[in-house]
Order: sequence, then C-alpha cells, then structure tokens
Amino acid sequence: MKYLIAFFSFFICAVPSFAQTDSVIMRNIADEILLRGTCYDDLHDLCKNIGNRLSGTKEAEKAVLWAKKKLEALHPDKVWLQPVTVPVWTRGKESLSIRYPGSGDFKNMNMLSLGNSQGTGGKPLTAEVVMVQDIEELKSLSEADAKGKIVFFNHRFPQELVNTFEGYGRTARYRSTAPNVASLKGAAGVIIRSVSTGMDDEPHTGAMRYADSVNKIPAVAIGNISADALEAACEKGTVTARLQSECTLNGTANSYNVIAEITGSEKPEEIVLVGGHLDSWDVGEGAHDDGAGITQAIEVISVLKALNLKPKRTIRAVLFMNEENGLRGGHAYADSAKARNEKHILAIESDAGGFSPRGFGTEMEPAQRQKIKQYAPLFFDYGVYHFDVEEGGADISPLHNVGVPAMALLPDPQRYFDYHHTHADVFEKVNHRELKLGAIVMAQMAYLIATHGL
Amino acid sequence: MKYLIAFFSFFICAVPSFAQTDSVIMRNIADEILLRGTCYDDLHDLCKNIGNRLSGTKEAEKAVLWAKKKLEALHPDKVWLQPVTVPVWTRGKESLSIRYPGSGDFKNMNMLSLGNSQGTGGKPLTAEVVMVQDIEELKSLSEADAKGKIVFFNHRFPQELVNTFEGYGRTARYRSTAPNVASLKGAAGVIIRSVSTGMDDEPHTGAMRYADSVNKIPAVAIGNISADALEAACEKGTVTARLQSECTLNGTANSYNVIAEITGSEKPEEIVLVGGHLDSWDVGEGAHDDGAGITQAIEVISVLKALNLKPKRTIRAVLFMNEENGLRGGHAYADSAKARNEKHILAIESDAGGFSPRGFGTEMEPAQRQKIKQYAPLFFDYGVYHFDVEEGGADISPLHNVGVPAMALLPDPQRYFDYHHTHADVFEKVNHRELKLGAIVMAQMAYLIATHGL
Repeated sequence: MKYLIAFFSFFICAVPSFAQTDSVIMRNIADEILLRGTCYDDLHDLCKNIGNRLSGTKEAEKAVLWAKKKLEALHPDKVWLQPVTVPVWTRGKESLSIRYPGSGDFKNMNMLSLGNSQGTGGKPLTAEVVMVQDIEELKSLSEADAKGKIVFFNHRFPQELVNTFEGYGRTARYRSTAPNVASLKGAAGVIIRSVSTGMDDEPHTGAMRYADSVNKIPAVAIGNISADALEAACEKGTVTARLQSECTLNGTANSYNVIAEITGSEKPEEIVLVGGHLDSWDVGEGAHDDGAGITQAIEVISVLKALNLKPKRTIRAVLFMNEENGLRGGHAYADSAKARNEKHILAIESDAGGFSPRGFGTEMEPAQRQKIKQYAPLFFDYGVYHFDVEEGGADISPLHNVGVPAMALLPDPQRYFDYHHTHADVFEKVNHRELKLGAIVMAQMAYLIATHGL
Repeated sequence: MKYLIAFFSFFICAVPSFAQTDSVIMRNIADEILLRGTCYDDLHDLCKNIGNRLSGTKEAEKAVLWAKKKLEALHPDKVWLQPVTVPVWTRGKESLSIRYPGSGDFKNMNMLSLGNSQGTGGKPLTAEVVMVQDIEELKSLSEADAKGKIVFFNHRFPQELVNTFEGYGRTARYRSTAPNVASLKGAAGVIIRSVSTGMDDEPHTGAMRYADSVNKIPAVAIGNISADALEAACEKGTVTARLQSECTLNGTANSYNVIAEITGSEKPEEIVLVGGHLDSWDVGEGAHDDGAGITQAIEVISVLKALNLKPKRTIRAVLFMNEENGLRGGHAYADSAKARNEKHILAIESDAGGFSPRGFGTEMEPAQRQKIKQYAPLFFDYGVYHFDVEEGGADISPLHNVGVPAMALLPDPQRYFDYHHTHADVFEKVNHRELKLGAIVMAQMAYLIATHGL
C-alpha cells in the first residue's frame, strides 16, 4: 500500500466541552510514550534478565526488587512493598510418552503439568487412555470405563469465535472441572488438549484446583498437534500413556505487591488504580502475561512525571503478586484498602497482552459506564472504540467485589491464546508500538478519571 | 486475564431491515473461514515453496502458475491470465562499508539498494558522506557541499503518529525525491535511513524513480540501528562510504495478472472486484506484502464456493502483477476493463498486511460512502469499526481514476512498517487468525455489495 491516509475527525463534534484541554494532554501523553517511552525496554530487561517468575520463586523476588527500583527511579510521591503470602508450587521433572495402537514403543510427547497439579511422585504412571470430547461425555463415563485409566479430555478451543476471550471462558473452566470429574470416576490421571488457539504443538499450562473431596490425580496439558495425534490414535485402537512428574505444592512463601503513587493535588484520598501482575507461569518469559501489563503500569507513572502532570486525584500503579496460581496479591491489596479505609474510584487492569488496544471493558454501575463512554470519542484516534464489554480483571476483582468500579484494557485478542502460559510467551512476541499504545490509553484514561472523577 | 467476556450487541438495533439475512450469511462466512479456511496454509505454501517473487523473475512466473492452479481447484465460473508487460530490475551483488572518523578501516553495513535504482556497475564508489536531516536541508546544500559526495538522507519515520500509514505517506516520498535532488546537486550516491518503524537493523527497499533529467546515481537504504551509528559518526567527524552494487534495469518481460470470477446470477455485468498483488520485492517472502492480500482474495472465492453462495452480481478476484515497481498489472487491468466496456461497481484491495482488520477505507462519491457506512454495524462484531479513511489501493487506482469506487481493507497498522520490503517479511510474522479475519471481512463486504449493489 503506497498512499497517504487522511483521517476524518468526524467524531470531534460529539465531544463534551472539557475535551479540548483533555485531548491536548492525551496527545502529549501519546507523543511522549511513542517517542521516549521505556515500557518496551523495561519489558526486555524483565524478560531477558529475570525471565519467568512464578510466585514463591527467587525470580519472583528478583522481579519485586526490579519493579521497586524501576518505580523509585521515577521519583513518584510514594513507592512501597505490600506483603503477600503466596503458595509455592514446583514443577520439577516431567514427561509423557505414548504407546500407539499396534506399537511396542513409547514415544515422547510435549507436555506441561497444569499449575497446582499434583505429580506422580516422580514414579511412572502407566495406564490405558480413554478419550472424551467434552465434559458431558466425561460425566457419562461409567466407573468401569474410567477406573485406573488416564482420561484424555479432547475439548477444542472454539476457533470460530472472533473474541478469543469468549472462547477461553468457555474452555478454560475445564482445566479444573475435568480433573475433578475424572478423579471422582476413579481415573488415575488426566491429559487435556491445551486451551489454545495455536496451530502448533505448544502445551499451555494454567491453574487448576482440586475439589476438597477428590483424590489429587495428575493433570497435564498437551499442544494441539499432539492432541490431534492422540485423538487419531485413540480412534484407531488401544493407546497407553506413561506419565512421570514431580510437581507438588510446598506450603507458602513471603512475597509482595509493588506499589507506587502520584498523590492527587486536590483530592488525594480518591485513588485511580492502574495495574497488572508481576508473577507469571514458570515457562517462557511471561512477556504478554503479564510483563506487558506491569511495564505499562510503570509507564503510566513515568509519563506523568516526564510531562510534569499533577493529577487532581491520586494515581496509583499496583503490580500484583500471584495472579496466576492464587490471586493472593489481589486479596491482600483489597484487604489492606479496607483496613486503611481507602477510597478507590476506579481500578484499571492490563492483563490481556501487549497488543494494540481496542477498548476498555467495564464492570461498574450503568451511570458510571455512561460517564466513561462520554470519553469514547477522545480515544477513537488511538484505535480504541469498544466500551461495551463487561470485563474487569482478576487482580482487581476483590476490590470490585466491595464496590470499586473495575475496568480492563482490551487489546486485540487474536494472538493472545497462541502464547498464553507457554514457552512461546517471550519478549520477541511483543511489538514495541502495540505495547506502547496500550500504555498510552491506560495513562490517558487514568488521567481523565483522576481529573474529572467518576 | 481469566474471565469470560460478555458482548452487548447494542448496535443491532441500528441495522437496516436487510440485516438479518445478511448477518446470518456473514456469520456463516466467518465460521467457514475460521474453522476451515485455507488462506494461512496457502500463504505458507507460497512463502516457503516459491518465496519472494519480484516481477520479471522466474519466481514471479511460478507464482502466476501457482495462483492459477489454486483458483482452478476451487472451480469458479472462470479463471484466466491477463498479459502484463513488466520491467525487469535485478539486484545482483551489493555492499556498503563505512570508514568512521579517526579509523583507517572500512566496516560493513547492512544495506539494500532501492528498487529500480542503478548500481555502481559492480565497481567501488568511494566518497565522503554528507548528512542531511530532511529534504529542505538537502535542497539548501551548495553544489560544493554535495559534489562527488554520498548524501546520507537521515529523515526519520514519525513514530509519534498512531496511524503508521500516515507516517509512511510523509516519509516514503523521499525514496525518490532525495536521490533526484542529490543528483541535481552533483552527488555521487545516496544512502537513506529506511522508511521503517522498526527498532532493528533491517534495511527496507522500495521503489524509487529517476526523473528524466538527472544522472542515475545509486541509492541505497540502511536500517535504523545502522542509521543511528552513521548519524553519530557524521556528527563526530569525516565519514567515508564505499558502495558497490550491480543493480540495473534490464528491459521488460512478459507476465500476467491472475483472475477468477464467480459470475453474478442476476446482474453478471456488474462486477465487485477483490484483489491484492502477486509480486513482491526480492527479499524476504512477501508474506504481509502482499501474500496476505492474494491469499485472502483466493479465500473469498473459496468461501463462496464452500457455502454455495451464488452472488447476484459478479465477484472477481484479481491478483495483480507488478504493484511494487511499476503498477503495470493495475494499468493493464484497467485498460482491459475499458476495452471490454466492463462495469465495476466496486474494487476492494487488501495490501496493508495480514493483520486484524479494523476498517475499510473508501475512495468514492459521498452517497456511495454513506451506503457503505450503513453496513458498519454488521461489521462491529468482526472488529471492523472504522469507515472514515479516504483510501483505496495502488493496483485499483487506475480503475478508480476512471470512476470506479475503490475500497481498502484497513488492518491494524502498528507492525506493518517493521517488516515492509525487508528480509523480515516472512510467513512466521503472520498470525493465522488475523489473516483469516481479513479474508472474512473482505468476503463479507464483497458479498453484501454483490447482493445490494452500490
């Protein structure tokens, strides 16, 4: 494509009277971040010098200190660490091999144990595979069909949905449901087709949780290519799987949320929160999930300082710990806010990847949503047009549960579930301009609400 | 991000009465392509088994036969080749090395000659470098400053613009202007900072054209990292460049546009065109530019056949030859349409990369644009919301110049100019769902207009 595109600013006529000053400040925020923003460099630093950072690991603690140092270097009004007790889950060694129908040999298959899963104690678990296509078929298995077997839960991601988060919502619930149902049927283990849009063989880990009443059977994920092969094999004849894994929960450890704020000049007691989560799974580099969100939150503080913007209300960046396998940071933050009687007027979370922003989800009263939507025309030129999704964020859900309006940055969702919770979620999968645009619109929204209230 | 997103379909109330049938067909098109579409596999085949395909090369001819075969396999009503005479430009060997201030040695620098540029005849051209920041500074150079020198045209891509195509429009014009102005000043050659958003060292080639009156001095591009180094060196002291290249124009060759159509059931004489260009530059794999567009155009034919949709008006896929360095295919097509007295009611081009679609640009009468915008609510759930950019496409510009309404598929523009015309424009940079979504909305739009007219 060769020619210049000319934009028509037809939306401007619909903007309320405060728009002119606001739109200039929004433009300044965008210029500063696109030309001199550091979130992309910060993400490189985090991904390459610390890497993945599951709660309770030394990498997570390095990430805490890294974030504190980054924020302190910006000289906001306050920076502090908030204690969080996190579960400690360790993966250890793990492997899965498959004996195909009519073959004597076991062949290795890519896999990842699901987070919080119990392993096989490092010993081989060898059993026949029984395939089911969905939860109904699993529930309808007789105990004789399932007892002692390894259930292959072959539920596919609904690729036909344009909004992959809807597909994720429909599919990811079975990461916990399938192992629990299989255990109740007497199964010895579970292999699930990954919750993945990928046309590849990446296994996707992710949290599962055992019900109190069930035996904790091992649960692992395999990539789509392996799942296709396993499906074909199960249709052909008897398949045996050999699973060996050491993963286990090992009590708790001390960790922290990392928090910084620029105190409001007129109403310091009213807080606009921007955040993401500092922890990641123990594979890849946690680049999109959620290195993106936390470097964007740091960028919000950075751009306010660079432009010497002094918001009327407090803007606070919160880098939560333990979103992935416990949400302890989100709960600790909400508990602390309650104990300190803090008034949050809005909490914005970025935890859907560092892709081009397209909207903001809102979980709030209709009148508040309407007020947010007044600003929609101001965001149009930044590619953000969609304000009609009801969505907040995991870390801010404990705040929302006690009445705080919650908001999610909604980036383009097409690529996220190719990388999510995999070895492939690395820095190289993040585009510098897309990441920065997310930071821009989050800073713009935080500044608007800190200026005008909600 | 963990939770389900629920969409509000608030837009539906605004849709005209034809919407219900249309929206069902649009949904069927989306399901078919997302679940069984072949554009991503086709792109893999094109990129990996043919690769880049500059007009006049044997790879371009392979691509012609490949496309014809692909289209014939879909059994549309017609498939044919339309002759196009194309220029033949060959790159040959090329190198650039730099002697930095205070150093005796020349060090190699990544580079690509600009397309259609004349080389050094394979002999070394060694000259002092004179740096200018923009076209005004170049124009203000005295002949004494420029004569016999190699001009380094250090104009930066305006990263602060959200719409990178606007930045490209402002910058790419100098690929031709700078060499011509430098030549008039007596310069011996030109090095330009690539027209690139990339934070890397990829040089970006692209077309340049000598004015009739000037000496054809060599013109080459370097990547942003090399340009930063060269800038720093020029600020420090005397820099010498040694350029050696064999590129040259070698007359013309015979080639083809590849065309397929599904003939309209009620008004076959009215044609809705969908297209992209089959040729690429001679580096990388031409994946986004424009393998994406042509595999999407093939997908439009494919989905109509798969769903047994019989459009009232003719839908024609045109895979143009020689967009990159001549636009001969676009002219040949428009000439043929005129000679055959064909009536095109709309021409849609996809040539801005295989990224998530966000809108359609329109170059047409206001009443036609208004008619197109009536359909906007139907596209909202497919991520397409922006209909207010005045944009058509290069290949369809000769048609537009004789009155045909032109339309551009507008994907998200953030990543395109990282890869455009580089070694990095390869299949792996294309996401399967993003590519398919572009094909979906192009097929939907073509079907709507073929049904309702324009």
